[in-house]
Amino acid sequence: MSRRANDARLLMIPVDRAAAEPLHRQVCESLRQSILEGKLSPGARLPSSRALASDLGVSRNTVLLAFEQLLAEGYLSARVGSGTQVARNLPVELLGNRDPASPATFNGAGRQLSKRSERFTQVPFVTRRLWGAVRPFQAGLPALDHFPARTWATLASKRLRRRTSDSLSYHDPRGWPDLRSAIAEHLAVARGVDCEPDQVLVTAGTQQALDLCSRVLLDPGDVAWIEEPGYTGARAALTASGARVLPIPVDTEGLQVGHAEVAAESPRLIYVTPTHQFPTGVTMSLARRLELLRLAERSQSWILEDDYDSEFRFEGSPVTALQGLDRNGRVLYMGSFSKTLAPSLRLGFLVLPPDLLDAVLAARVVMDHQSPTFEQAVLADFLREGHFARHVRRMRKLYRQRRDVLVGELDKHLAGLVEVEATDTGVHLVARLPRGINDRALARAAVEQGLEVEALSSYHMHAPERGGLVLGYGAFTDEQLVSAAERLAAIFDQPGVLSRERAVPA
Amino acid sequence: MSRRANDARLLMIPVDRAAAEPLHRQVCESLRQSILEGKLSPGARLPSSRALASDLGVSRNTVLLAFEQLLAEGYLSARVGSGTQVARNLPVELLGNRDPASPATFNGAGRQLSKRSERFTQVPFVTRRLWGAVRPFQAGLPALDHFPARTWATLASKRLRRRTSDSLSYHDPRGWPDLRSAIAEHLAVARGVDCEPDQVLVTAGTQQALDLCSRVLLDPGDVAWIEEPGYTGARAALTASGARVLPIPVDTEGLQVGHAEVAAESPRLIYVTPTHQFPTGVTMSLARRLELLRLAERSQSWILEDDYDSEFRFEGSPVTALQGLDRNGRVLYMGSFSKTLAPSLRLGFLVLPPDLLDAVLAARVVMDHQSPTFEQAVLADFLREGHFARHVRRMRKLYRQRRDVLVGELDKHLAGLVEVEATDTGVHLVARLPRGINDRALARAAVEQGLEVEALSSYHMHAPERGGLVLGYGAFTDEQLVSAAERLAAIFDQPGVLSRERAVPA
Repeated sequence: MSRRANDARLLMIPVDRAAAEPLHRQVCESLRQSILEGKLSPGARLPSSRALASDLGVSRNTVLLAFEQLLAEGYLSARVGSGTQVARNLPVELLGNRDPASPATFNGAGRQLSKRSERFTQVPFVTRRLWGAVRPFQAGLPALDHFPARTWATLASKRLRRRTSDSLSYHDPRGWPDLRSAIAEHLAVARGVDCEPDQVLVTAGTQQALDLCSRVLLDPGDVAWIEEPGYTGARAALTASGARVLPIPVDTEGLQVGHAEVAAESPRLIYVTPTHQFPTGVTMSLARRLELLRLAERSQSWILEDDYDSEFRFEGSPVTALQGLDRNGRVLYMGSFSKTLAPSLRLGFLVLPPDLLDAVLAARVVMDHQSPTFEQAVLADFLREGHFARHVRRMRKLYRQRRDVLVGELDKHLAGLVEVEATDTGVHLVARLPRGINDRALARAAVEQGLEVEALSSYHMHAPERGGLVLGYGAFTDEQLVSAAERLAAIFDQPGVLSRERAVPA
Repeated sequence: MSRRANDARLLMIPVDRAAAEPLHRQVCESLRQSILEGKLSPGARLPSSRALASDLGVSRNTVLLAFEQLLAEGYLSARVGSGTQVARNLPVELLGNRDPASPATFNGAGRQLSKRSERFTQVPFVTRRLWGAVRPFQAGLPALDHFPARTWATLASKRLRRRTSDSLSYHDPRGWPDLRSAIAEHLAVARGVDCEPDQVLVTAGTQQALDLCSRVLLDPGDVAWIEEPGYTGARAALTASGARVLPIPVDTEGLQVGHAEVAAESPRLIYVTPTHQFPTGVTMSLARRLELLRLAERSQSWILEDDYDSEFRFEGSPVTALQGLDRNGRVLYMGSFSKTLAPSLRLGFLVLPPDLLDAVLAARVVMDHQSPTFEQAVLADFLREGHFARHVRRMRKLYRQRRDVLVGELDKHLAGLVEVEATDTGVHLVARLPRGINDRALARAAVEQGLEVEALSSYHMHAPERGGLVLGYGAFTDEQLVSAAERLAAIFDQPGVLSRERAVPA
């Protein structure tokens, strides 16, 4: 009896009545640790629950609950007659002196990641700074202050009341059927895209579409073309797939299909933004589009057409999509609701040549099975009931006005210092700087002043002839734009900011 | 004049007043096609808008709109004096006789996918049959008929009214902060997981967590262990990463860490379900857990602990997580709200050793940046306000009852034919079949009868000694279970179903 009691006393089980943790958990945890640290060895007998309870001055039930849990977890065993003891089958050599190092202090040795994982960090493309905060002149954001919150809430409430078991279960990885057909209709009418609902795959925004296509179409070492300058998110996804990414310069007609580099290596994949080149804003000419399609067919390349903000063309209708000109199923067309509604929805789409559907779908299922169902259904209603078309029309007017404000302010404060480009579409523009000015130094200075300004050269792989500033206006009120433009102008006057050192590529 | 007029007449522009498509679009489309097909060659003059309008019997404005669009797209050019003509800079050789093959008829030649893409199809793991439909005995589904729809709708409406610009923008890829801390708290209390909110990464369910970890931790050729039998979704993700997946047999204590195959090849990664092995339902013993942790440290392997449905243990508290025993930061812990709430939310989580955070986060950003924000925020409120804990308690009772019903029915109809296992936790059980019975033949027959029954052997990589049926009960009412069990029993009586041919592995 005494020995058993001693075992228990040796434990010195601390019991804190003030603590939030229930007493039985405290006893359980303390016993568990004593066993793991070898203070109680396999086979050691525990006092009866009654004895231990009185030792600790807790109710017997408290001890019983602790014992039950430890029995369930295999720390203790109980046999009729011999009472409760520490399980005999515990590997003694694994108990005691276990390294209590806190995870923070692991040494790097033997903590190996995949070589592949390095590729994810090669292209810096998201800065923590931007999470959540919305500050001028962050590019690529829609007018979140005009998000159709009321309409959305009404449609959402309807859906919330109609939630069925089937809609809560796993669903078609291709996306919510109503949404896919609504997207197909919208694209046929508004973008001249030639597709059936069955070719539409709902994705978690353009970024997932890029990753998905890169994984299904590219092996390490394959050549992929991107525009120079070009969208960093695309470069990051292509790089992650192990492809060799070649930057092809863009001129006033868009990607220079006939460019020298082209002859050198024929690409497996070509990423383009023909309607509104990002970030320069150039529209790819019809001649170039036809040349690009011919080249893709000859070199058996795939074309990723990213049509990210084409809805917002201020004069006339948007130029129709490259996909609509394609007769050979070489174009994978992608779009997003991040620029038309909100990035937080994480909803975009891929329009695929029919013979790619199965392969892309198989990859999607392994990656995350499907996009969440609920907001897909709400968005489907939003499109079907015509709210989307109305919202886009309203936003087009709004962005045009916000553009006029920004262009006016830049002209007022920075005439002669910057040359404004890419102003006929979208939610951002490029303010081109004089040759030799380091746009990164300027951008850094602006960020220090609480402005979100991207250097044009940060979208280049090779140093550009002329740098520039990429300025988003879509997400900001006239007042915000006016004051932000003033603050930006002030930065130009800071000593050293207009330094002549050459811009360095990303 | 006549020649120009002829040009226009040659076009034979069809105008259909009945069509939904506006007239100017019809004219625009028809002209575009004529140019692309070479019927109208570069430089060819168009009649004046007035003349063409009267030719076609439409308003002049209709023609002007069509011209404007085609000018914007570069099909036409207009010079003062010389009127409108087909753009001269179009590459003649690319116009005319363009292959009008419909995408459906592409021949496979030169339509090359990545070698990597084949890996996505190697492990069949989602059957279209299951999309949306919820039928007995589909495994791994919670009681969708008891989804807390009203509470969820109330919380959602609050959030819908509070939607801010910041919450609509891009957000922290690690997940909604309130949700991450709520998850960390829940795991500490309910699962004995040792973590800070900063170690929590919100994922699109367990599947994305598996894909994410596989990409960051495994290179092609690396060895990864899974349980035999084991979860197919994990096998699919590991296979997609190019790893060599080795099945390690499971016995009554869980993964056989000391198994012969272990000596052969030391793994870079080990996937386990210690709390409730899928599908057998075994709980890994404490001894095995300690051995597994030691082996991981010695062989410098990562352990993926998938804790998919541990909340639903019917006797006592759930066994605490392997992660809580780990002193060396070798365990990546993953869980999901698919089993506690609904798969359609696509919300799960990863708890990472601190030194893996940056690498995993970098990959997540390239893959899809982040999970949608809205339902993350609602779920955070659901956890914070205690609804989750209450729901889990309610469901535990419910599942226990539904289990009792199914076990009773199986006993009533199939006593002696099946041996029921894995009944103390979760939302499914295994009905073991006599040696040599082909469980796949049985499952096929059941599916033909409108039941969702999985063969145990379909979770094996090598043919098992004994097959079985994996039967989900969590998602089905007593009535559904009773009638489904009867139908299942009837299938056993069908001639040939209990054939003695050996089960074939997946």
